[in-house]
Amino acid sequence: MSVIKHLESTKSEYIESFRKFLRQPSISAKGVGIEECARLLKDIMDEWGIDAEVLPTDGNPVVYATVESKKSEKTLLVYSHYDVQPPEPLEEWISQPFEAKTVEGRIIARGAADAKGNIIAFLKAVESYLKTEGEPPVNVKFLFEGEEEIGSPHLPSFVESHRDMLSADGVVCWDGGLHPSGRPSISLGVKGMLYVELRCRGARTDLHSSQAPIIVNPAWRIVWALNTIKPPGGRIAVRGWYDDVRPPTEEELKLLSEIPFEEEILKKELGVKEFLDGVKGLEALKRLVYEPTANIAGMSSGYTGVGSKTVLPCEAMAKIDFRLVVDQDPYRLLKLLRKHLDEGGFRDVEIVELGTLLPSRTPPSAPIAQASMKASEKVYGMKPVVYPNSAGSGPDFVFTKILGLHSVWTGCSPPLAKAHAPNEFNTVEHMVKGVLYAAEIMENFRYL
Amino acid sequence: MSVIKHLESTKSEYIESFRKFLRQPSISAKGVGIEECARLLKDIMDEWGIDAEVLPTDGNPVVYATVESKKSEKTLLVYSHYDVQPPEPLEEWISQPFEAKTVEGRIIARGAADAKGNIIAFLKAVESYLKTEGEPPVNVKFLFEGEEEIGSPHLPSFVESHRDMLSADGVVCWDGGLHPSGRPSISLGVKGMLYVELRCRGARTDLHSSQAPIIVNPAWRIVWALNTIKPPGGRIAVRGWYDDVRPPTEEELKLLSEIPFEEEILKKELGVKEFLDGVKGLEALKRLVYEPTANIAGMSSGYTGVGSKTVLPCEAMAKIDFRLVVDQDPYRLLKLLRKHLDEGGFRDVEIVELGTLLPSRTPPSAPIAQASMKASEKVYGMKPVVYPNSAGSGPDFVFTKILGLHSVWTGCSPPLAKAHAPNEFNTVEHMVKGVLYAAEIMENFRYL
Repeated sequence: MSVIKHLESTKSEYIESFRKFLRQPSISAKGVGIEECARLLKDIMDEWGIDAEVLPTDGNPVVYATVESKKSEKTLLVYSHYDVQPPEPLEEWISQPFEAKTVEGRIIARGAADAKGNIIAFLKAVESYLKTEGEPPVNVKFLFEGEEEIGSPHLPSFVESHRDMLSADGVVCWDGGLHPSGRPSISLGVKGMLYVELRCRGARTDLHSSQAPIIVNPAWRIVWALNTIKPPGGRIAVRGWYDDVRPPTEEELKLLSEIPFEEEILKKELGVKEFLDGVKGLEALKRLVYEPTANIAGMSSGYTGVGSKTVLPCEAMAKIDFRLVVDQDPYRLLKLLRKHLDEGGFRDVEIVELGTLLPSRTPPSAPIAQASMKASEKVYGMKPVVYPNSAGSGPDFVFTKILGLHSVWTGCSPPLAKAHAPNEFNTVEHMVKGVLYAAEIMENFRYL
Repeated sequence: MSVIKHLESTKSEYIESFRKFLRQPSISAKGVGIEECARLLKDIMDEWGIDAEVLPTDGNPVVYATVESKKSEKTLLVYSHYDVQPPEPLEEWISQPFEAKTVEGRIIARGAADAKGNIIAFLKAVESYLKTEGEPPVNVKFLFEGEEEIGSPHLPSFVESHRDMLSADGVVCWDGGLHPSGRPSISLGVKGMLYVELRCRGARTDLHSSQAPIIVNPAWRIVWALNTIKPPGGRIAVRGWYDDVRPPTEEELKLLSEIPFEEEILKKELGVKEFLDGVKGLEALKRLVYEPTANIAGMSSGYTGVGSKTVLPCEAMAKIDFRLVVDQDPYRLLKLLRKHLDEGGFRDVEIVELGTLLPSRTPPSAPIAQASMKASEKVYGMKPVVYPNSAGSGPDFVFTKILGLHSVWTGCSPPLAKAHAPNEFNTVEHMVKGVLYAAEIMENFRYL
């Protein structure tokens, strides 16, 4: 395969471009280096024959390119992000986070795995086709955003207003890596999110608690309201909350049963003796992947310091992240929650919406899912670990719901690559395998 | 009256001593400035001819003094406290809480009303007698503790082991102020207290909230436990909680009905539209005085900053002050609470006891009660508001139950003086009247 030969003969320039990309900080949470990184990415793409544009959004710019192919009418949309997490705590890095130094075979840098390595590997695959066969196996569109690490706040509106430009036959969200077992990993969906803060106010200021018999205590109000939202037992009691939950298909449950779930290692890692309600094995995994949640992420009221203070608080708040599964709609649920509180006598409890993400799922039978599974098995020599749904959330809905496409989440980062942690790394070997994985996805997608 | 003349001629030094006392922080909840404040108080007393001792307890020291009088065989024990509440929230103060600055005629400081103003006023009364008549109308013993704001944890054992030193014929707990109407206020009893912190732990560290379906969330555990302790409706649901509540006597109810309860002014001041459950008038007052409470004084878990963070907290806590009425016993109730949580499935919720106080009550016919009523009417020109029981708590039982004495709670702080809240204050006028009130109590007690 000429692509492989080309890759082998240009490997050192390839890795040098990767290092150059890593050396440019692009910390979206702090607004550091974003514009510079978008321009650098465009320059690398242009140099490799992939004409790219830096396009404005209501936030950080996206880098966009299309590469046409006469081999196929099919178009693959490749999504990833050039922004990175903040590198802190700095003192724990064995080399500087934006130095991209190689230490014991590892290229150490913030973004090495999440997701600059992924981006460069896919670009290299397309470049290799351009240099050897003149065109890739399918038409390719690249969409690289600069706000993934801060929750993609402007991606939905950008995609909404660029539907035609982004039209395609399938999407690879190229922002992942290998399973801890070394097997490739593919996710076919993500949970959605409704993040709210409940707030309640009482008297004008905190009072002496001797007033408790006659003055409302907002902490009790919040406690009582929370208890009606999710009473002991753990099921969310807001009427209609589960109406739109689509249960897993037989096909999905089969995939789930094939996931290696090392529960004793996980329990030890998290420091718990058992999982919630004593669930084990497949049942635990099923909950993790398919259960909508109401999680108290924070709560606060009154005096929280050491010792005792007899205060009647004038305000109380609780933050809840509700994770949602298909086809729950955060906007509908927000209304149900308001109704629930009103009807339960909690009109005094304010709901402040702090974020929404729609849940999203792609069937295992989708061409892009099949193409990715085949490609990963061929390149890595092992069956992929396929999650019918992730326990986490992400902006997948912009592809499945706004563009109406199938979408998979996968990538070529090393296992346990310390994404979001100090000493994030990649290796030359994984960067090479990544190019082949990207190439095989395109090859397979052409005929599926 | 020579005492008044002396007071007038030394007023500015008097107020300066008060400011000096206020400028010394003495936050028992945080262990800030306690020893320094005890020594400063002793110095002021010594300077005024009242030989004081700083005596150790198992906690913060007490400041003790006796002043003998040949005028009477009677001895009055005067109790108060030199410690203060924490000043938080700091940003709401119009001047620094330990600056004692005068703003629009108000001396603003934490402790200005509760109870440093009281202490200095009574000392000034005795000093005035010493400087003019050579001795006060009765023998006086001063007992100033440094732990009242954290529930007087070591006062009972101190009193227990100093019975002889503290022998007396009656007690004035000099830790109060004027009624909102401007009339003096006298309480013949206090509520007791059981202060606990509920704590619960989950995983080893805070986790990403995608783990919520399988990992226990201690914030939910605390919410659910709280809801079983006091469900909506407000009645404490711990079995046996109300067993020992002694209902008010006819005499007490008569006193209660004479209390001016300016509910509209109170509501406006506190910034509430109505009282809890819409209660009004005598019913509201009866609740305030006779109802045992369970007040959430603080709670905390997870992320409490601005915006959203998807965290599954590893710990949660709630502080509750339970106020008790005669004859509820905090030690028995603590056992009932543990039993309640155990039987309700909350063995994982730890109870940390942070303070106990027994409830206590003195009959209106007691000599010290009669002396205080007469004195207050003479000095302020208005009948006192007599509470058969206070809505607040205090270590009254050490006098009534350990020493077997009658005891009243009164004082000279301004009405609505923001005790325990930002911008606590006193005024020169109230500090002057306070000296006269203290003097008259001694004069009247001599003959009753």
